[in-house]
Amino acid sequence: MPFTPTDYLPYDFANRRHIGPSPAEMAHMLETLGLSDLESLIDETLPKSIRQKNPLNFGKPKSERALLNHMRITASKNKVLTSLIGQGYHGTVTPPVIQRNILENPAWYTAYTPYQPEISQGRLEALLNYQTMISDLTGLEIANASLLDEATACAEAMTMAERVAKSKAKAFFIDENCHPQNIAVMKTRARPLGIEIVTGDPGKLNPADVFGAIFQYPGTFGHVRDFTSHIEKLHENKAIAVIAADPLSLTLLKEPGAMGADIAIGSTQRFGVPVGYGGPHAAYMATKDAYKRSMPGRLVGVSVDAQNKAAYRLSLQTREQHIRREKATSNVCTAQALLAVMASFYAVFHGPEGLKAIAQRIHRKTVRLAKGLESAGFKVEPDAFFDTITVEVGLMQKTVMDAAVREGINLRAVGKTKIGINLDERSRRKVTEAVWRAFGITRNDDDLSHDYRVPDSLHRKSKYLEHDVFHMNRAETEMMRYMRRLADRDLALDRAMIPLGSCTMKLNSAAEMMPVSWREFSLLHPFAPKDQALGYEEMISDLSSKLCDITGYDAISMQPNSGAQGEYAGLLTIAEYHRAKGEEHRNVCLIPTSAHGTNPASAQMVGWKVIPVQSAENGDIDVADFREKAELHKNDLAGCMITYPSTHGVFEETVHEVCAITHEYGGQVYIDGANMNAMVGLSRPGDIGGDVSHLNLHKTFCIPHGGGGPGMGPIGVKAHLTPYLPGHPELGDDTGPVSAAPFGSPSLLPISWAYCLMMGGEGLTQATRVAILNANYIAKRLEGSFDVLYRGANGRVAHECIIDTRPFAETAGVSVDDIAKRLIDSGFHAPTMSWPVAGTLMIEPTESETKAELDRFCDAMLSIREEIRLIEDGKYPKDNNPLCNAPHTVQDLVGTWERPYSREQGCFPPGAFKVDKYWPPVNRIDNVYGDRHLVCTCPPMSEYAEAAE
Amino acid sequence: MPFTPTDYLPYDFANRRHIGPSPAEMAHMLETLGLSDLESLIDETLPKSIRQKNPLNFGKPKSERALLNHMRITASKNKVLTSLIGQGYHGTVTPPVIQRNILENPAWYTAYTPYQPEISQGRLEALLNYQTMISDLTGLEIANASLLDEATACAEAMTMAERVAKSKAKAFFIDENCHPQNIAVMKTRARPLGIEIVTGDPGKLNPADVFGAIFQYPGTFGHVRDFTSHIEKLHENKAIAVIAADPLSLTLLKEPGAMGADIAIGSTQRFGVPVGYGGPHAAYMATKDAYKRSMPGRLVGVSVDAQNKAAYRLSLQTREQHIRREKATSNVCTAQALLAVMASFYAVFHGPEGLKAIAQRIHRKTVRLAKGLESAGFKVEPDAFFDTITVEVGLMQKTVMDAAVREGINLRAVGKTKIGINLDERSRRKVTEAVWRAFGITRNDDDLSHDYRVPDSLHRKSKYLEHDVFHMNRAETEMMRYMRRLADRDLALDRAMIPLGSCTMKLNSAAEMMPVSWREFSLLHPFAPKDQALGYEEMISDLSSKLCDITGYDAISMQPNSGAQGEYAGLLTIAEYHRAKGEEHRNVCLIPTSAHGTNPASAQMVGWKVIPVQSAENGDIDVADFREKAELHKNDLAGCMITYPSTHGVFEETVHEVCAITHEYGGQVYIDGANMNAMVGLSRPGDIGGDVSHLNLHKTFCIPHGGGGPGMGPIGVKAHLTPYLPGHPELGDDTGPVSAAPFGSPSLLPISWAYCLMMGGEGLTQATRVAILNANYIAKRLEGSFDVLYRGANGRVAHECIIDTRPFAETAGVSVDDIAKRLIDSGFHAPTMSWPVAGTLMIEPTESETKAELDRFCDAMLSIREEIRLIEDGKYPKDNNPLCNAPHTVQDLVGTWERPYSREQGCFPPGAFKVDKYWPPVNRIDNVYGDRHLVCTCPPMSEYAEAAE
Repeated sequence: MPFTPTDYLPYDFANRRHIGPSPAEMAHMLETLGLSDLESLIDETLPKSIRQKNPLNFGKPKSERALLNHMRITASKNKVLTSLIGQGYHGTVTPPVIQRNILENPAWYTAYTPYQPEISQGRLEALLNYQTMISDLTGLEIANASLLDEATACAEAMTMAERVAKSKAKAFFIDENCHPQNIAVMKTRARPLGIEIVTGDPGKLNPADVFGAIFQYPGTFGHVRDFTSHIEKLHENKAIAVIAADPLSLTLLKEPGAMGADIAIGSTQRFGVPVGYGGPHAAYMATKDAYKRSMPGRLVGVSVDAQNKAAYRLSLQTREQHIRREKATSNVCTAQALLAVMASFYAVFHGPEGLKAIAQRIHRKTVRLAKGLESAGFKVEPDAFFDTITVEVGLMQKTVMDAAVREGINLRAVGKTKIGINLDERSRRKVTEAVWRAFGITRNDDDLSHDYRVPDSLHRKSKYLEHDVFHMNRAETEMMRYMRRLADRDLALDRAMIPLGSCTMKLNSAAEMMPVSWREFSLLHPFAPKDQALGYEEMISDLSSKLCDITGYDAISMQPNSGAQGEYAGLLTIAEYHRAKGEEHRNVCLIPTSAHGTNPASAQMVGWKVIPVQSAENGDIDVADFREKAELHKNDLAGCMITYPSTHGVFEETVHEVCAITHEYGGQVYIDGANMNAMVGLSRPGDIGGDVSHLNLHKTFCIPHGGGGPGMGPIGVKAHLTPYLPGHPELGDDTGPVSAAPFGSPSLLPISWAYCLMMGGEGLTQATRVAILNANYIAKRLEGSFDVLYRGANGRVAHECIIDTRPFAETAGVSVDDIAKRLIDSGFHAPTMSWPVAGTLMIEPTESETKAELDRFCDAMLSIREEIRLIEDGKYPKDNNPLCNAPHTVQDLVGTWERPYSREQGCFPPGAFKVDKYWPPVNRIDNVYGDRHLVCTCPPMSEYAEAAE
Repeated sequence: MPFTPTDYLPYDFANRRHIGPSPAEMAHMLETLGLSDLESLIDETLPKSIRQKNPLNFGKPKSERALLNHMRITASKNKVLTSLIGQGYHGTVTPPVIQRNILENPAWYTAYTPYQPEISQGRLEALLNYQTMISDLTGLEIANASLLDEATACAEAMTMAERVAKSKAKAFFIDENCHPQNIAVMKTRARPLGIEIVTGDPGKLNPADVFGAIFQYPGTFGHVRDFTSHIEKLHENKAIAVIAADPLSLTLLKEPGAMGADIAIGSTQRFGVPVGYGGPHAAYMATKDAYKRSMPGRLVGVSVDAQNKAAYRLSLQTREQHIRREKATSNVCTAQALLAVMASFYAVFHGPEGLKAIAQRIHRKTVRLAKGLESAGFKVEPDAFFDTITVEVGLMQKTVMDAAVREGINLRAVGKTKIGINLDERSRRKVTEAVWRAFGITRNDDDLSHDYRVPDSLHRKSKYLEHDVFHMNRAETEMMRYMRRLADRDLALDRAMIPLGSCTMKLNSAAEMMPVSWREFSLLHPFAPKDQALGYEEMISDLSSKLCDITGYDAISMQPNSGAQGEYAGLLTIAEYHRAKGEEHRNVCLIPTSAHGTNPASAQMVGWKVIPVQSAENGDIDVADFREKAELHKNDLAGCMITYPSTHGVFEETVHEVCAITHEYGGQVYIDGANMNAMVGLSRPGDIGGDVSHLNLHKTFCIPHGGGGPGMGPIGVKAHLTPYLPGHPELGDDTGPVSAAPFGSPSLLPISWAYCLMMGGEGLTQATRVAILNANYIAKRLEGSFDVLYRGANGRVAHECIIDTRPFAETAGVSVDDIAKRLIDSGFHAPTMSWPVAGTLMIEPTESETKAELDRFCDAMLSIREEIRLIEDGKYPKDNNPLCNAPHTVQDLVGTWERPYSREQGCFPPGAFKVDKYWPPVNRIDNVYGDRHLVCTCPPMSEYAEAAE
């Protein structure tokens, strides 16, 4: 009867939209598991001892519409003024074609890191464009695929300099013209590593005292200087020279490579990436060819596929934290892929002529601005500048700053008596005139002269961006189609499940993503006056309070902008705590061997010694070994790092004991939050003994992976650690910052906040339950065909499961790689390979996948098992079978087919869509070739042709 | 030297972004044409006599950023209140997943009408879902793929009723409860056709007097009535019954089919499509199976492809205006595809349970609202309602309305003493309370009872939306992937040129599209008080003034919401003019045989006799024949309809003469604006003799085609015709409207306005020049291989060219269809086929395509010519060659290959991308099968399987 009310809730985001399985599907899955309800599964999976006492209560969950209304109200509390503050953050114009087709396109933003290169050729090409752009602009041979932000890039450059310098000096020199946050982050990073920092005027640098030096170019107060002679002297002393350079300025100015610099770093934010109150943006790093193996971060290179066609991949993967692990001085394991892609498209969109014209325009405007001030009698510094000037105003600093705000403009207070002004791509005539008015000058900006204020010796002489891609036809039609073609080459969440263990590739919903593009969130300068950012303040405060409720911690720092950064920040907080207690000597960290690779690297970065703890046979932490080692190091135990549920996907019952032992011997407990998606609403790290954890917002809290970044890794701590959380010079804190911006990458926070608001406490908890259900359903369906390693006491897995593929190497010559590539033929991204156990696959479906998609995946896996059996039975040769030939391309279909299986069997295995099949653009890529023939910039087109021959 | 200013303008939207060929490419193309500059080409192409005197001057063109700023300021002048006005327009919630992945996704919005079904399977499936939804909800066997708006759908239903009714009566009855704009549009339509309109209470209908009747359900004042007995009586008198029904109400109420209705029409706006100040939205029409061949509009059906697999196509294409042409009573040739797709996804997103829950919620809220008013003593009508009530307020009407506005709410003034209130999906408790306050009632909306106000006899008893697609898992992940899969099946502008002659598939830029989603444009009710729509007013006024400058006319009406509607409105304006002069007898219209098919249909619709005029040998109008016929009909000559440049793609020099003859004999000149893209800035229809023209904003002015609509066809007229332009009851005009909303589909106007503002006068003119250049370049490259029909005096074509493929039928058995399908293999949408000359292809590249893309197309065409030669030479059999087997699918590659050409030759002809090739999901579709076995709703999955066998 139509008017009898139904209990169907059409606006229930959590249960109708975010959570994949429908109620009917869930019932079916529970039946498969032999269970009557979901709660029974949870009871079997989570030990009672770790269950949280009170359910999460965040009030009534919001519908998508209510959420967007709420967001709009919050956003309206942010005031968008024109910020001429500079200091590494600049107004920029995001070309609409990039905004719509990259930033707002799930094909780009839902992609994972390109570890499976065959299904990532699109973004690998875009990232190679990025590397080429950076290499060209800096004049250095090799560039990576981006770093987290400029300040951490400075720190990475410093530690890299230490690694590669032949100088034995222990100090590092920082140009006092570096941006304050860069200096602060380098200082934070230096101390635990025993690096002494010397800050000063480059003219006073004594090169013999240092293993390296960094110069900002242009300087934070605007100076444009030639560092050639400083660098020569550094080199004479076997020290390393780093230049932090604004890439836009390099279209006009002598490039770091021409000055002899060994390393260049900087931010590509102003290449079309909105300021976003501090991030995310892509920082860059470039270096000389000689140092390429010491460079942190990801590096895209060109290799060939099985048909000898040119193909892209991540090169030199086995560097730094992988090789040195406990000795690593970098824990960087992600990049800012989506932002680097945007920046590279900005360069493609404008080309070298366009970028140069933009830079010229900015410089001319700055010259005119200076002339106006000078003609009114103000003293403008420096003589040579690009886009930034500093004006002496004596006692009138506040007066002028306030007048500027009334004109809708934020200026920068420099010292007590000066004002800094930075112009950018968005600066227009009326902005210049408004600045003059703030200085009491009534004047029209109608000077048409083309003066410049850069000495001839600093003019750039070399060419850049000469590759074809930067000279393609820049009509929007072509740009749009190029973006579409690249997007189509990649397999992202918008087409299929990405069952990556530990990486939690869940839904990034449209409602969550929309506010990111709003100008009230995207156009705020990170150092704008606080009363202009009340919307951000409200969001950060409410989200922090929710994250505290979820984790059982007392305070949150949003500053770390990746998971690994979060680890580092968390350990740093513990170290500061020990130091404050006079126990700075505590420097031993116990880490299970199954830990994330970043764990030991992070511990090393805070100056700790890593003591590995063995795993018991069942994969759990060997508590006896743990206790023994804790006791052994009781006098200098700093803490331990554990992952919960374990990286084996199990809720270890012994976790309380491990935490208690650590505390007993004076250590602090770091619980890695990578697996938080198995806990939210059910268990809290802060309750089970953790003192600090990081949360991967890009895993558990819906920030999209962006094809390899952005990430976000805020940390939660217990009250006793709160005073030692990362600070920031702009917040007037004493504690050193770990990131460039006070709140890391805050323009991502609307996503996680929206997720919490639309899910509500019960929705978040249900998501956890269903994540566990989905993982157990897969484990059940695969069991019998594959061995499922590591289960809890009741035979259940947590939110992921590990299946053993090692036996097939012997029985069929099939590697885990073969299985991964064969899954591509079925239209899937492979699960996590060989981690935490070599030769295994770790599968994490997340709660967002439907039963139908899980079944499609299981069908594909079971079919692969049957194919392996045919090899085992000798029906297929070991060197010619659907697995070793995977992935199959359309070109395979076109050519002759000399295989012991049909075209249909090869290309349409179970799971593959018949009509909507994803076709990888290349066959299997040769990793060895790529590392041996390292090419990390766009090769000339002729070389592609050659490779193809 | 880096500081030497360059003349590169990075923010030049017109030349850098909108116009395809780069300056270097243009130089090359001119060289190919043997010309030194673009102006020479224009001089050779456009007769001097038609060139316009003064260049367009729209001031400085805006950059994308400046445009968006300007738009934001304009948008802020629109005030978004909560409109409870109803009257056919309702608040709705667009699910974000639909907004982002359909409305804001170029893969959906840049697609063309699905005339080439093999490359349109995605949107054809979505439209079939739409038809299924409508058929289910209305309870009628067959539904079309949408009509322009509810009011025109009423008019279409009326004329359809006249066509199919066996009654000989001449009158049509309109329920006085129909929305006023529906009544007005029907009246406009009826008069020229000689249909007498009787309006009144359904109880007073005398069925013997009418050939049909229409009832609104629910009525405009809220009434919900059972029309079963009225319909029985109509049927007894061989008359036709039409019900205009709100589809959401049909989830609860007895459906039109159950009442015996022959036709149901209505608007699907409230299925997730923003109100947008009046449009665009998709109207629907459903009817009984017996009448399907008389139904106007497009009909998607299921057929089979060459492999006997189920495939979708447009069915029964040869109806109405194609069959009857001069006798047509409908000129509908487009649909609202993008909006119908959105509405169908809204139904998929919510499913029958969700839609019903939404409808229930709205009804319960309305009941509570009524009870609140009643308990305060107000008289609420009617007794039975769904979502709309009318309240008697006596003299207080204005007071209450004003109080409501102060509460942020618009109500509807009904008569002088009543107020109408309509609730919708967006109405929340606080809205109800605010309405009460406006009535002076302080009351909380906390009544939790489930009363309803619909008599049991009107409860819906039948099921609906039972097909699998409406029961798919509605998790966002699945929805997103379904949208992506469908999008990927289609070939749209975001992947390749669509060189459709006369359809002008040019760039729809991201900057132009963005404001469409802004709430200040999308959430306004068309009948909201004018002072809330000042932004729209400003935009419409400025755009109108620019369009006047461009066309040489004196006034513009934005009301017609398609090109064909524009034609009709233009002719109606002329007819009104004649009538006002007492020359109503003028009813002869001269139309060249080469005219658009809609021309004669439009003339017929205003009650005119169409006299065809022959073409001369060169394709031009035969002026002697024209003069002869004009003279013959001089006493009753109403006017002529010509297209300029001609549909043959030629600027006829005789146009002045043709216009002069028409005027000489008392007629008015209608110049079809379909080819305006060849004129903007160079020539003005108003200068060369036109009295009225329509402009296809979706052709020349960048509104995307949306996969088959929306369109927009405003008309320009000379001053003497201005008083006779379409009016609207809401504007208090006397003249009858042609569309439901006063300004047609105004939420599209930001696109065209943005285009004009960013291009500037010179940019628009350059676009015209380059459109002509691109067409001539193609003509040049193809000449020698194909005959180019129809050229101007100097051997040039205008903005399109026609190539003759007729000879190949005889020499090689190759049809124009074969060539069209073979182009799919190269990744192209075919040019316009067999129009205006059967057996030819008309190619229009537009100015937005680069030389590289033109070359890719020409390479494909030249290769096709070579393949034809191989058939001519007997190398390929006539029944087994790359043309007759086209398009080739991946499945062809998988199967055995028994063809006289290689897989490579078959699937990768010149032009096809190697890596990024577009693969059609089906082989060639059998048209005859589809029309013989008409299936226009989603078949059960079992039937697909059968078809595949």
